[in-house]
Amino acid sequence: MKNGIENGYYHEITPSGFGIAIKAGKVLVSKQTPFQKLEIFETDSALGRVLTLDDLMMTTEGDEFFYHEMITHVPMAVHPDPENILVIGAGDGGVVRELTRYNCVKNIDLVEIDELVIEVSKKYLPTTACRMDDQRVNIFCEDGVKFIRRCENKYDVIIVDSTDPFGPGEGLFTKEFYGSCYKALKPGGIMVNQHESPFYAEDAAAMQRSHKRIVESFPISRVYQAHIPTYPSGHWLFGFASKKYHPVRDYNGTKWSMLGLQTKYYNTHLHSGAFALPNYVEEMLRDVE
Amino acid sequence: MKNGIENGYYHEITPSGFGIAIKAGKVLVSKQTPFQKLEIFETDSALGRVLTLDDLMMTTEGDEFFYHEMITHVPMAVHPDPENILVIGAGDGGVVRELTRYNCVKNIDLVEIDELVIEVSKKYLPTTACRMDDQRVNIFCEDGVKFIRRCENKYDVIIVDSTDPFGPGEGLFTKEFYGSCYKALKPGGIMVNQHESPFYAEDAAAMQRSHKRIVESFPISRVYQAHIPTYPSGHWLFGFASKKYHPVRDYNGTKWSMLGLQTKYYNTHLHSGAFALPNYVEEMLRDVE
Repeated sequence: MKNGIENGYYHEITPSGFGIAIKAGKVLVSKQTPFQKLEIFETDSALGRVLTLDDLMMTTEGDEFFYHEMITHVPMAVHPDPENILVIGAGDGGVVRELTRYNCVKNIDLVEIDELVIEVSKKYLPTTACRMDDQRVNIFCEDGVKFIRRCENKYDVIIVDSTDPFGPGEGLFTKEFYGSCYKALKPGGIMVNQHESPFYAEDAAAMQRSHKRIVESFPISRVYQAHIPTYPSGHWLFGFASKKYHPVRDYNGTKWSMLGLQTKYYNTHLHSGAFALPNYVEEMLRDVE
Repeated sequence: MKNGIENGYYHEITPSGFGIAIKAGKVLVSKQTPFQKLEIFETDSALGRVLTLDDLMMTTEGDEFFYHEMITHVPMAVHPDPENILVIGAGDGGVVRELTRYNCVKNIDLVEIDELVIEVSKKYLPTTACRMDDQRVNIFCEDGVKFIRRCENKYDVIIVDSTDPFGPGEGLFTKEFYGSCYKALKPGGIMVNQHESPFYAEDAAAMQRSHKRIVESFPISRVYQAHIPTYPSGHWLFGFASKKYHPVRDYNGTKWSMLGLQTKYYNTHLHSGAFALPNYVEEMLRDVE
């Protein structure tokens, strides 16, 4: 079975032969950009509209907050004073939306290689791409790998909201890239990236490769998990890499709660709970540490 | 799209129009029992063999340990001295396998309404149904709802490994049934049940109904989560109901670790982490408490 929409259903089946199926409604956008195939389709379920790139799930209106809250609030709640933020990928605007809720943030640089992702997200995913016009946001439509080579000692937090480790997102999983991130961060800086799923052999291998490279680049490197229902297996990992702050020991949940941010997925108990991983995942990580 | 196998793929789509797809190999068993349609098919992936009932996913060789470890070790690690255990449903033998690893366990009563589930599991899922012949196990092929009406002050732990809340498993989600469980438990007794997914409107409603009924029946009622990749959404809940022991505050992880049990999913960090739920789930639970 081919990934993508056929006979009214969107399928995304991993090479393992297991994945997700979604009843698809009207296709709102289907175009080949200079970088990738971009589609947005409707569903008549709570998933709402769905954005895919190269026939791989990127985000749905129904569960985008699981992913965007977990990739954003975990580093933002650990860093004591995150002012200058770099976001790579994330053209759908979900990470930017969460970041703009912090008054302490003074600058957000968003580097998205494919400007069409931003354009269609603003038009068709307005609840996700709703804060792209915030005056603190600077949008750079270029390759994140090249952008970051020019940066030094500049950011407090870097969020790498990449696609999968092949195609346009491939360079965002290399040792060179993680080294550039390290250099681009200030002394207390934190990098978070989407880290694939541990459940499929092919994803797990990519996850182990990334983890090994991050461990080699940063003194502190931990992995945390979340439920992402619309990603195959629903079991998704994020990497937390840091120059100084430990994601659990240096976390002040009370301070974060005092900000009064209303979240639908993230909370201070879940913050620590998310770093407790199943044994089989811990073993995969230890194998490359 | 119909649930079940068609054109080489098994589909399980919830009424919401979203679910899982698995490339199916040879069908090893397909029969109508007096209670339900029972199928076992092969896959050529890490999922291994797959057992379905009425075209709904029950278990796969590949991820059965996620579910069986989380439904078994959480109550077993909280109860200080679990000797007499009742298991309802669970004809695939996965819960029994985990229970027999505890030397403290003196008796396991397994009540499975459909003896064919046990028979085919022993034949086709030998790594799951491998301990059904343990001398501490007594198998009763009858309705769990009726069985438990006859029990009083008898069990330390009851594990309700039910199918979904319709069809043969429906009675295992009623207030009467939870009341019977309460009566069947000794003063320090704990009941754990599979609690559906919070992600789909229809499952979430069933989950809220169960939780309300359990809260009305037990002084302590908490919900915990796990990743179950082959259940639609992958986000699955379990209910922990107890007469006396709190699942986190009364948990002694060191004591459990001293048992030396090797697990692939469960560990002592994850035990506490699993009770940290996303805000949207906490809200659903609070709505009915």
